Amino acid sequence: MFQDFEQSTRPEQGPPRLAALRGELAAAGLDGVLVPRADAHQGEYVAPRDDRLAWLTGFTGSAGFCCALLDRAGVFVDGRYTVQARAQLDTTAFTPVDWPATGLADWLRGALPQGGRIGFDPWLHTPAEMERLEQALNGSGIVPVPGDNLLDRIWTDQPAAPQGRIIAHPLEFAGEAHEAKARRLGAELASAGETAAVLTLPDSIAWLLNIRGSDIARNPVPHAFALLHADGAVTLYVDPAKLDEALRSHLGASVTVRTPDAFVRDLQTQPGPVRAHRASVPCAVADLLGDRVSWGPDPVALPKARKNPAEIAGSREAHLRDAAAMCRFLAWYDAADQTALTEIDLATTLEGERRATNALREISFDTIAGAGPNGALPHYRVTHQTNRQLTEGALIVLDSGGQYPDGTTDITRTLVVGEAGTEEKACFTRVLKGMIAVSRLRFPRGVAGAHLDAIARYPLWLAGLDYDHGTGHGVGAYLSVHEGPQRLSRAGDVPLEPGMILSNEPGYYREGAFGIRIENLIVVQDACPLPGGDDRDMLEFETLTFVPIDRRLIDLDLLEAGERDWIDRYHAACRDKIAPRLDGAARLWLEGATRAL
Amino acid sequence: MFQDFEQSTRPEQGPPRLAALRGELAAAGLDGVLVPRADAHQGEYVAPRDDRLAWLTGFTGSAGFCCALLDRAGVFVDGRYTVQARAQLDTTAFTPVDWPATGLADWLRGALPQGGRIGFDPWLHTPAEMERLEQALNGSGIVPVPGDNLLDRIWTDQPAAPQGRIIAHPLEFAGEAHEAKARRLGAELASAGETAAVLTLPDSIAWLLNIRGSDIARNPVPHAFALLHADGAVTLYVDPAKLDEALRSHLGASVTVRTPDAFVRDLQTQPGPVRAHRASVPCAVADLLGDRVSWGPDPVALPKARKNPAEIAGSREAHLRDAAAMCRFLAWYDAADQTALTEIDLATTLEGERRATNALREISFDTIAGAGPNGALPHYRVTHQTNRQLTEGALIVLDSGGQYPDGTTDITRTLVVGEAGTEEKACFTRVLKGMIAVSRLRFPRGVAGAHLDAIARYPLWLAGLDYDHGTGHGVGAYLSVHEGPQRLSRAGDVPLEPGMILSNEPGYYREGAFGIRIENLIVVQDACPLPGGDDRDMLEFETLTFVPIDRRLIDLDLLEAGERDWIDRYHAACRDKIAPRLDGAARLWLEGATRAL
Repeated sequence: MFQDFEQSTRPEQGPPRLAALRGELAAAGLDGVLVPRADAHQGEYVAPRDDRLAWLTGFTGSAGFCCALLDRAGVFVDGRYTVQARAQLDTTAFTPVDWPATGLADWLRGALPQGGRIGFDPWLHTPAEMERLEQALNGSGIVPVPGDNLLDRIWTDQPAAPQGRIIAHPLEFAGEAHEAKARRLGAELASAGETAAVLTLPDSIAWLLNIRGSDIARNPVPHAFALLHADGAVTLYVDPAKLDEALRSHLGASVTVRTPDAFVRDLQTQPGPVRAHRASVPCAVADLLGDRVSWGPDPVALPKARKNPAEIAGSREAHLRDAAAMCRFLAWYDAADQTALTEIDLATTLEGERRATNALREISFDTIAGAGPNGALPHYRVTHQTNRQLTEGALIVLDSGGQYPDGTTDITRTLVVGEAGTEEKACFTRVLKGMIAVSRLRFPRGVAGAHLDAIARYPLWLAGLDYDHGTGHGVGAYLSVHEGPQRLSRAGDVPLEPGMILSNEPGYYREGAFGIRIENLIVVQDACPLPGGDDRDMLEFETLTFVPIDRRLIDLDLLEAGERDWIDRYHAACRDKIAPRLDGAARLWLEGATRAL
Repeated sequence: MFQDFEQSTRPEQGPPRLAALRGELAAAGLDGVLVPRADAHQGEYVAPRDDRLAWLTGFTGSAGFCCALLDRAGVFVDGRYTVQARAQLDTTAFTPVDWPATGLADWLRGALPQGGRIGFDPWLHTPAEMERLEQALNGSGIVPVPGDNLLDRIWTDQPAAPQGRIIAHPLEFAGEAHEAKARRLGAELASAGETAAVLTLPDSIAWLLNIRGSDIARNPVPHAFALLHADGAVTLYVDPAKLDEALRSHLGASVTVRTPDAFVRDLQTQPGPVRAHRASVPCAVADLLGDRVSWGPDPVALPKARKNPAEIAGSREAHLRDAAAMCRFLAWYDAADQTALTEIDLATTLEGERRATNALREISFDTIAGAGPNGALPHYRVTHQTNRQLTEGALIVLDSGGQYPDGTTDITRTLVVGEAGTEEKACFTRVLKGMIAVSRLRFPRGVAGAHLDAIARYPLWLAGLDYDHGTGHGVGAYLSVHEGPQRLSRAGDVPLEPGMILSNEPGYYREGAFGIRIENLIVVQDACPLPGGDDRDMLEFETLTFVPIDRRLIDLDLLEAGERDWIDRYHAACRDKIAPRLDGAARLWLEGATRAL
């Protein structure tokens, strides 16, 4: 099993560690210190060595940070994690802060009215983040002070840095040799008058060099830094223990491998201007570059987001394989004595089906299997302590995915135990209508995710309902399941372009009662012109996910003809594409699950 | 009549004026000069004295600019005005430039490869505009040079500045005394540590002081500048000839009136920091303030946009009055020998009905009456030269509005001559579906116009159609018919708030064939909670416009039940609200036009 169901922290571990940290604060002449969730690579998952926030506070969510002062310690978490933070923190020592409603600067102004010095590790924060903080602190006399990591001093049994093996990502799936990518993107730097770009995001480096790593859970990326030079040469800064001869041969002559400590020296001497992304490189990188820095986007971000035909073909195949595993799971579930099952049973059985494909490298993220009221927590992670037995009429939000050599999947289906209630069916159908509306979209080039997010919410809004997360995130090609800059949310200001893979996952959550989410992955494509349509450059979404949507949860009276047609056509496609991959009971199940409405 | 149908310029006037301007260029040691459409108040309409762009080039559109060099002169106009510019310019002297596809900086780089000095009048451009230009010119060696207005030197018969009388806007319609407004907004400046704010937008000054002016066509605003002081005192810089004793009494002790030339002196001595809006004050104001400037929003913009209950009540009444005039017009049109009519007949008859209300102060803008292919030009303005006779089957886009003492209206209805074609009806119905979708919206607080614009386009997009303008603009309360910052468009980044009035006007334009637009005004309101809905702060739109939508243009097969219901309820409301204001044939017409579908 990839997934475990343990609680990795205990609330009572926090207070003595906080006390030790405060001792360091006093010794360093500081009034406080920032302990972020992020590592130097600003990813969503961190290695055990970098899990400082969880080690100090007990909070294990994927976003948030602590600010420890001498007399109080705030743990800033967003609405997704409010409940989890209260359960994981010793709240006599740590105060959960509702973030971003309360910003760090406002909180600091209240806690340190007379000024103060707040330490931070310049490898764990970005210039964009610290500039925002400094602006918000303007006039308060409170100053952030970069320095050594104080927490690492007291973490005596801190794990070592990971040494996960790096493998080549085959050209068959990458679609473009790494030398060609580097030449192409290096030429863009040259035409902007830049000598090089600093890469600190592991998925940027993995995509650029057609490599995959295993330093952190769930994401097949290596911890590394890199310089992409304007001539297409690449310097890769990585622990040599992670590379074998085959990989060195894959990297070839255009890639120079150096140790991580050489990164600092090379940044000091690299002639400018050097491209760096203000919102993703560490402050330490900006300080090392000084006035040789040229702020701009990570040059890999958009090319990586725009999947090429090989990457799209790989993602299609990965999704068909994953759909077959999902269908086997759903067939098992429908035949099971459901009220004898728990949330963990669902997660383990589903992971088993994915493993049985013999192609699973990892799961894309810890499976969310939330039954009844647990389903109302959009990012619920089941543990032995929270594990619920399924009960008659309960809805189950089941959000999961697999990392395969040819693609990354992410799918949510809402299951029901027996017969769903009228209210649950009405809400499910409204979520489905939004999900269909996005699936059917055609839109002109230039439109960004911020302009489309409301399309998914409209049927819910009309009934006075909504959900507190974006409609969709970008997804990588056997890379991170959460990838930018493309997204379907009010924060998505990047125009959508052909090849971008996104999730389409509206939901609805009734606190203490039930949750609903329906998620397919979609890929942006040029739209075929329609008869009678304008002579206009339009885009559309191709659906990648082909797993039936539970017909028993649909209130047919709430569907319009076009929506009903979409479902019937979608289910016919599921049958055509997935049935050949199934046999026996699963195949029979698929026949039934895809009947016309 | 307010509206005339003359062409105010002739193409052949341009070349000799351009030659004279080039003489001034040479004398001033410049390589070119900017001639904007804007005046010092950055409004959409300008006084004859400020209509420099039209005088020089012949182009009379409401947006665009000229850059005159020694060897060429570009007239930069957006897609709305491409056709008009080609008709109005002598293109042997002036080159229309497709803007913003081609930016000024790019054009200059191509025209002046070796650098150059481009003169501009610092009263006619904003710092935001000039900083964008300077950034875009970076590295080109081309520099903008502020100086006297060269065009005014050669415009020997330039009209005098307008001296339109200023009147008080009664408290009954304003809803809040000007002293209270100024104290309230001044206190916000004080809490931001600012001594004052510079106001240069006429509608900001008119709203703040509860005054209305008559310096320019269509917009009831005075040309003036003002300083709003942190203590709530206001200094109004205006030609004293525009004020009578009654108005001085209305302004009272808290408002000091000074002549326009005192504005420059006072800016030089006003202690800082002084709030100014980078995107609306002239560069000259920024230069006069120097380092005393504090960039921020115009403090009046948002309070003006959020109409108070008296302003909303006034707008409701103005819309009912205007709807009665529209219905009388439509009744006349339906009974008329339509193919004997022209576009000008429609505009003049409609203005006559509005005048007959005895409450019309002005029309809100030149009525757009575009028949057949003219309707495909979204901003078409009919002249004697372009005036089309109505022909069987033609669609007519009729976009018009009135300025009444209690409110500003803006309505578009699409008319048909006889029987519409199948294709026209299908397109009309898709536009209508989008307009209904916006009308029915409920959405959570925090949502901006950029997030909602696509809701109106979705039914068109599904058919491969779209329109090249925003879905809606802000509208004032007996003020400008185009008012920011609220808008329903991809550029609308301001969250919508209760009291904001917007237009809801999707359209469809098939070049050379026909145009369609349907427009109601709507006002944002707190939404009543729905049974079964979330406990969530949601907003909705109240419709202000009550004029029937032509039932004969609707393809019923394309409507869903909820849309059909909306139309029937809307038409019932039109009947209930407007019938008491009509009699005779108009009342009978309304009965027929509002029958259930």
